[in-house]
Amino acid sequence: MTHSVLINGEWIPSSGTMTFQAVNPATTETIDGDYPISPWEEIEAAIQAAAAASREMRGWPGERFAAFLEAYADAIEARTDELVDLANQETALPASPRLKDVELPRTTNQLRQAAAAARTGSWSAPTIDTAANIRSMFGPIGPVAVFGPNNFPFAFNSIAGGDFAAAIAAGNPVIAKGHSSHPGTTRVFAEAALEAAQKTDMPSGFVQLIYRTGHEDGCRFVSHPLMGACGYTGSRHAGLKLKEAADKAGKPIYLELSSINPVVVLPGVIAERGDELAGEFTTSCLMGTGQFCTNPGLVLLIAGEATENFICAVADKFGAAPIGTFLSEGVQRNFAEGVAALQSAGATVLAGGETGGGNGFSHQNTLLRVDGATFLADPEALQAEAFGNGSLLVVADDADQLVQIAEALEGNLTGCVYSDSSGADDAVYDQVVPALRTKVGRLLNDKMPTGVAVSPAMNHGGPFPATGHPVFTAVGMPTAIFRFAMLQSYDAVRPHRLPTLLHDEHPGNGCWRLIDGEWSQQSIGS
Amino acid sequence: MTHSVLINGEWIPSSGTMTFQAVNPATTETIDGDYPISPWEEIEAAIQAAAAASREMRGWPGERFAAFLEAYADAIEARTDELVDLANQETALPASPRLKDVELPRTTNQLRQAAAAARTGSWSAPTIDTAANIRSMFGPIGPVAVFGPNNFPFAFNSIAGGDFAAAIAAGNPVIAKGHSSHPGTTRVFAEAALEAAQKTDMPSGFVQLIYRTGHEDGCRFVSHPLMGACGYTGSRHAGLKLKEAADKAGKPIYLELSSINPVVVLPGVIAERGDELAGEFTTSCLMGTGQFCTNPGLVLLIAGEATENFICAVADKFGAAPIGTFLSEGVQRNFAEGVAALQSAGATVLAGGETGGGNGFSHQNTLLRVDGATFLADPEALQAEAFGNGSLLVVADDADQLVQIAEALEGNLTGCVYSDSSGADDAVYDQVVPALRTKVGRLLNDKMPTGVAVSPAMNHGGPFPATGHPVFTAVGMPTAIFRFAMLQSYDAVRPHRLPTLLHDEHPGNGCWRLIDGEWSQQSIGS
Repeated sequence: MTHSVLINGEWIPSSGTMTFQAVNPATTETIDGDYPISPWEEIEAAIQAAAAASREMRGWPGERFAAFLEAYADAIEARTDELVDLANQETALPASPRLKDVELPRTTNQLRQAAAAARTGSWSAPTIDTAANIRSMFGPIGPVAVFGPNNFPFAFNSIAGGDFAAAIAAGNPVIAKGHSSHPGTTRVFAEAALEAAQKTDMPSGFVQLIYRTGHEDGCRFVSHPLMGACGYTGSRHAGLKLKEAADKAGKPIYLELSSINPVVVLPGVIAERGDELAGEFTTSCLMGTGQFCTNPGLVLLIAGEATENFICAVADKFGAAPIGTFLSEGVQRNFAEGVAALQSAGATVLAGGETGGGNGFSHQNTLLRVDGATFLADPEALQAEAFGNGSLLVVADDADQLVQIAEALEGNLTGCVYSDSSGADDAVYDQVVPALRTKVGRLLNDKMPTGVAVSPAMNHGGPFPATGHPVFTAVGMPTAIFRFAMLQSYDAVRPHRLPTLLHDEHPGNGCWRLIDGEWSQQSIGS
Repeated sequence: MTHSVLINGEWIPSSGTMTFQAVNPATTETIDGDYPISPWEEIEAAIQAAAAASREMRGWPGERFAAFLEAYADAIEARTDELVDLANQETALPASPRLKDVELPRTTNQLRQAAAAARTGSWSAPTIDTAANIRSMFGPIGPVAVFGPNNFPFAFNSIAGGDFAAAIAAGNPVIAKGHSSHPGTTRVFAEAALEAAQKTDMPSGFVQLIYRTGHEDGCRFVSHPLMGACGYTGSRHAGLKLKEAADKAGKPIYLELSSINPVVVLPGVIAERGDELAGEFTTSCLMGTGQFCTNPGLVLLIAGEATENFICAVADKFGAAPIGTFLSEGVQRNFAEGVAALQSAGATVLAGGETGGGNGFSHQNTLLRVDGATFLADPEALQAEAFGNGSLLVVADDADQLVQIAEALEGNLTGCVYSDSSGADDAVYDQVVPALRTKVGRLLNDKMPTGVAVSPAMNHGGPFPATGHPVFTAVGMPTAIFRFAMLQSYDAVRPHRLPTLLHDEHPGNGCWRLIDGEWSQQSIGS
């Protein structure tokens, strides 16, 4: 049986003739049920329905979107067991604690934070210049396409995750393009989303789902004149194709592509607590079989005896740790190719290096090493991402070379620096961090990069190729929301025609507004 | 004699062999002095010097940049007469009031507003989550290339205008690419900028100037790995070439391309004060020979007898008004081609239509007309910008067709709606404005779009093709600044290593910070 697509408020049989099946990565067996590859007409129908929804919702208060987001979070919780069971089958991620106790609550928490943000409207930065009588705020941008990744079937799901929540909170309809590795999970989310949309009287084109498109149709999709913007999390190759098409059409596209998340471990902290760090690093690097966007894939060290001991300890731990299951055969293949490419560029394998060793799709926990001069001779090749349970250690000759390596880094989501507590590492810290700071969205001290708090101060973003634009973050409410908005200024617009958040009188919903340069929660003149 | 370029703190002879000369548009005669077209090596040298400056300035407080911006504003004022005289020769814009009394004060005002913003740092949105101990703010993005336009030799000058001021306020060095139509004006600004930079001890690569590059070198420039971002204001064709190169390299580029700024004049207001409006519109459209980015190039009307009278009145006024001088021969040629293209697409000429009629480069004040059905048959061709002293009137059959036309608009900087005072137009207003709102950055009531206040609530931006991204504005402090920044998060970074603006203790400079969801000018815990 072939599953239906959700277009314009109804589950309808796809008009496509091609299908695909999900695969259980732990058993490598296909899972019952065919999912359609949507032809262009179907995508066009979804776009038209979303554009109609967008028109219908113009000027709606944030409360409407908040009500949907909260009803949806409730609907998801009501189907927890079904979602966890399906996602576990489709991704091999542990049902507990990962899916049920961590990722699902994170997902509903994101939806509820987005609801709170939509309700106050503070995310839209209402700004009033009383002397010039000019007022501005961010408003919805139009239909948003969300392409979800493989590695978070809940929290980054195309129809339930962070981009979805942010796009809705900004007041837009969403057309979700599910990830092919977990279509069943995505289908259940879409059922819950439709239920919540109906319950809260949203337009029929408000939330829609297609499972897969041809590559060319994907490019047409994100560059369509009626589309507002796109959020994409996934492979660099596919992402750059979409980016080219969207850029050409002048459509904003927010990408999360690849990041190897450098971790600098300075000599003093190795001397102080090298064994403990070896364990901390190994746990972070192998967690979830290394399939995190913030996985520490590059470690920068300075040569020395203690460093050699640290490296041995990590290699031992990599060898001893259980081998996880990958999300798909594609991840297995890409990881093996990535490891081989690093070796071709001059890296040597200290642990692991072979495909297999775990249940289903898997690869040995793999640690590689290269010296600083070799890294600097071809920094691009040695920064190619190998997405999975592995990392490359770069051993610099000295602090100066370490700084050169930091200057040669591409953009990353995160950069971590471990230094000792007595100050022995401080001089080197002060040399290396200014270089690192400009290359990463989030700088950490004495802490591994995995684990991304949903905080207004979070930056899950960074310079290209980590993302497409270093001003924006994909995680964090309300900061993630304004990606799916446009700035709208009102110049001498008659008072009764202004959006409520720009009236002289404060709407009484807690919204922060910037009035004549002062942030305030009050009415003008009060 | 060939003028030097400003590279790494020194005026040096260009190594290029090609040169160009400025032309006085009022006399069509060339002005003494050759200006070099810089070869790639020169651009590369400027980039290397800017990158070194960027490294040197890492972590510098906003005060340093504020001091430069203020010293520069003073230095400009000291050379007012020289600047006004040169700009008048090179652009034919009136020395007074335009250049001396309006544009120059606006320019120094922008620099001082940028200084104030750099000093408080509120633009960088310092955000603190005390529970998670994550903190974030916007920080400098790296060397910025600024390509200035022809039409504001001061206020948008590549080395003195809004993009320059914003890029500096964010803490970046700037490499200015002057506009070929006013190289002498730009040279004097650069001399003043260098003087101010030396006086305030800025690095040698902080402000640099080249006059012109080959097209291919321009693309290499904006996509260079060491560059942070680019601000570009100018023609759509050249801008899209740069955009393609920058997008491919993942480098932010902020473009202001083309905008025809629709003005909707509803029947009631024509009945109420049609003659007055005909005058107001004519003044706005012909001011500065129509060479404003917010020039009203498209007027939407509903058919009727009063509308016909309004059209006749406008046509009379266009015929009677003096004919201004264009900024260059290129503007004259492009305007004539633009008018011809609109005619080919079905528009008829009501007034003007021929090249010449004024001093030097000029074209008759030109009014065109097309009916709504013809417009809707080819909205793309009938929205092609004819930059200059002309406008296209679109006469819709009725309100429904007016709404269809508004839905067919491309992105614009502004959209104006004139309606009567008694409410007779309100029903149509409510139909057309929701469509218009999503197409324009700034919505106006009863007011022409020319005149762009430097206000925090201003949006001088809008959907493509008006700009490259509808989140950003090119005018308005501090909002224009964060285009030249990257979001930087600090996760568990040790307190003494945080930027001053993210310390628990408030720096006492008036900076607004978002602490645990509340905007505040206080220390944490106070």
